[in-house]
Amino acid sequence: MNLRIPGPIPVPDDILDAMSEPMINHRGPQFKEILYRVTDRLKQVFQTKSDVYILTSSGTGAMEAAVVNTLSPDDHVLNVSVGVFGERFGIIASTFGAKVTELSFPMGKAIEVGKLRQALSAQPDIEAVLVTHNETSTGVTNDLAAVAQVVKGEFDKLLLVDGISSVCSLPVQTDAWQCDVIATASQKGWMLPPGLAFLSFSERAWEAHQRARMPRFYFDVSAYQRYLEIGQPPYTPSVSTMFALDLALEQILTEGLGSLFERHATIGQMTRDGIRGLGLDLFPDESVASNTVTAVKVPEGVDSALLLAQMREDHEVVLGGGQQSLNGKIFRIGHMGRCTPEDIQDVLDGLAAVLPRVGFRSATVGATGG
Amino acid sequence: MNLRIPGPIPVPDDILDAMSEPMINHRGPQFKEILYRVTDRLKQVFQTKSDVYILTSSGTGAMEAAVVNTLSPDDHVLNVSVGVFGERFGIIASTFGAKVTELSFPMGKAIEVGKLRQALSAQPDIEAVLVTHNETSTGVTNDLAAVAQVVKGEFDKLLLVDGISSVCSLPVQTDAWQCDVIATASQKGWMLPPGLAFLSFSERAWEAHQRARMPRFYFDVSAYQRYLEIGQPPYTPSVSTMFALDLALEQILTEGLGSLFERHATIGQMTRDGIRGLGLDLFPDESVASNTVTAVKVPEGVDSALLLAQMREDHEVVLGGGQQSLNGKIFRIGHMGRCTPEDIQDVLDGLAAVLPRVGFRSATVGATGG
Repeated sequence: MNLRIPGPIPVPDDILDAMSEPMINHRGPQFKEILYRVTDRLKQVFQTKSDVYILTSSGTGAMEAAVVNTLSPDDHVLNVSVGVFGERFGIIASTFGAKVTELSFPMGKAIEVGKLRQALSAQPDIEAVLVTHNETSTGVTNDLAAVAQVVKGEFDKLLLVDGISSVCSLPVQTDAWQCDVIATASQKGWMLPPGLAFLSFSERAWEAHQRARMPRFYFDVSAYQRYLEIGQPPYTPSVSTMFALDLALEQILTEGLGSLFERHATIGQMTRDGIRGLGLDLFPDESVASNTVTAVKVPEGVDSALLLAQMREDHEVVLGGGQQSLNGKIFRIGHMGRCTPEDIQDVLDGLAAVLPRVGFRSATVGATGG
Repeated sequence: MNLRIPGPIPVPDDILDAMSEPMINHRGPQFKEILYRVTDRLKQVFQTKSDVYILTSSGTGAMEAAVVNTLSPDDHVLNVSVGVFGERFGIIASTFGAKVTELSFPMGKAIEVGKLRQALSAQPDIEAVLVTHNETSTGVTNDLAAVAQVVKGEFDKLLLVDGISSVCSLPVQTDAWQCDVIATASQKGWMLPPGLAFLSFSERAWEAHQRARMPRFYFDVSAYQRYLEIGQPPYTPSVSTMFALDLALEQILTEGLGSLFERHATIGQMTRDGIRGLGLDLFPDESVASNTVTAVKVPEGVDSALLLAQMREDHEVVLGGGQQSLNGKIFRIGHMGRCTPEDIQDVLDGLAAVLPRVGFRSATVGATGG
């Protein structure tokens, strides 16, 4: 199967093999060595000198951790949303009692920095800004550097980032951009199975943490920090995924972040060009289209469920559907991690074969080439 | 390595191999099939017709889920504790705002049902009782059937159970005993790596859930229930551990729960007999000693850190130390899952060799036999 959803992504065989290593004591010397090594390497990928913690949860758990570790009930936060995952960030904050002001942009669009500035000017009591870097539901990448320049440089607010489908795939400079907390998860560019999430935590985030009164236990970073000092996790972690993470990080840093980001940019461009070559339309504006996931409009007259089923059954290609209000309106192609041009060509060839069978009429079908 | 801590436990090779299966779409038909099959089988092991949910977290996450899904801030709860994990359950409840009355028994002792009855009589406004079935930190198994008889049969309170190191190793009759919520985790008797936790949820727990106002998002069972209806998890789960769980449950139910419980009882007895044969003392009273973990007093004059290090380095046996106030005072031998008499004999032989070298003086050392 060519698994081309925006996570989980196909995991290279050697990393999958690491998942089968025998169990060890998570409070013993061997685990301590791994924990310190991967923590150090995670910091290199995050480009931060601050703390990075490893949680056993999905990315949503890490988003919750970002919120509950830095905020108090009744804190006023600005949730800047461009899709389903942006909405989720705001719901988490309001679930734990924050007063959330929503700044939403239409699906398929990116954050407009001018409107962000306006919102922050208009409401000076805002404590924190919640932002999605790469919105998986719409295939849009926000300009996090520009967003951070406003949030931090101009207004000096706490900046919490959902970097779940960006860190380790797209350039993210945690310290240079002054991101206070960034949440990400193992099943994305890290080339791992799901099961672990990573959370960077700046000095400013620690200051906020001292005042933050949202209740937290499993996700309380204080415990992670205290145990990290003795080389242990506070609770039993996903040991197998730690083995795999150890190997993946070695490969990622051996390749180098520059090469990794360039590969993602190239494969993103190839995907978009190929989609257009099929006579299909991208869902987001090209200028903000993501290099980790491509969202494509389902053409008029095409049943997306049938399209995805035939791609899976006849071509062994698994694509993602649209979520919530986008269900039936878009489909999504994931291209994180070690995705090759052949993987994408395989998708394009499959689409070229299946589309005419599911009601698509276009003069350009067949002109995909490669 | 003979990993004899009370979790993670050694995972059989075929189950480890399942951890390396290629990733699949967690929202696709193959995952749906697995999810429904393992959920059905989990219910068989829990001996319940109620819901069982699969969380991607450690057991502590599932304890938090038990609390936040059924309680509100200011609810009065009785936390019945016999060790470190019992204390943790109470801390979680108070962290989320419950008014917690502690009923603690000394380390190494089990719950006295009479005192439990007394506490519930004295404080009729108690809404819920929090109980540890098997206290891993002290090697004590509480009589959950008797506890439940008081909590449910006599007082009809909500009963939340930490069954982390008991379910799938010791007899647990969720429905017959009327346990409302039981939390457990994959790295115990389930023979899996850590990374998943399981939570049973009774009809009465759902009633409590409707009123419960503690904030929750990642652990909110409503989302797990809603998504289970369409055969999906709400958030990206630990897919690899789901593959392994699928195989483990097949093996567990093929063996049969009766045989599995009997094996654990036999291996527990063998461990305790062997320990006494070495001239060592059990930490808990024999009558309440656990069949999943044996806690042993560190003899006078013995440095437990040295003992554990020599067991690891010279005999490839990894034992657990004492936690918190028991650090240096006890060590622990885990015997959950597919632990064999040979595994335990290996531990006993190692102890017989190492103990005299680390300061132990006893006439009976060497008389271990087997």
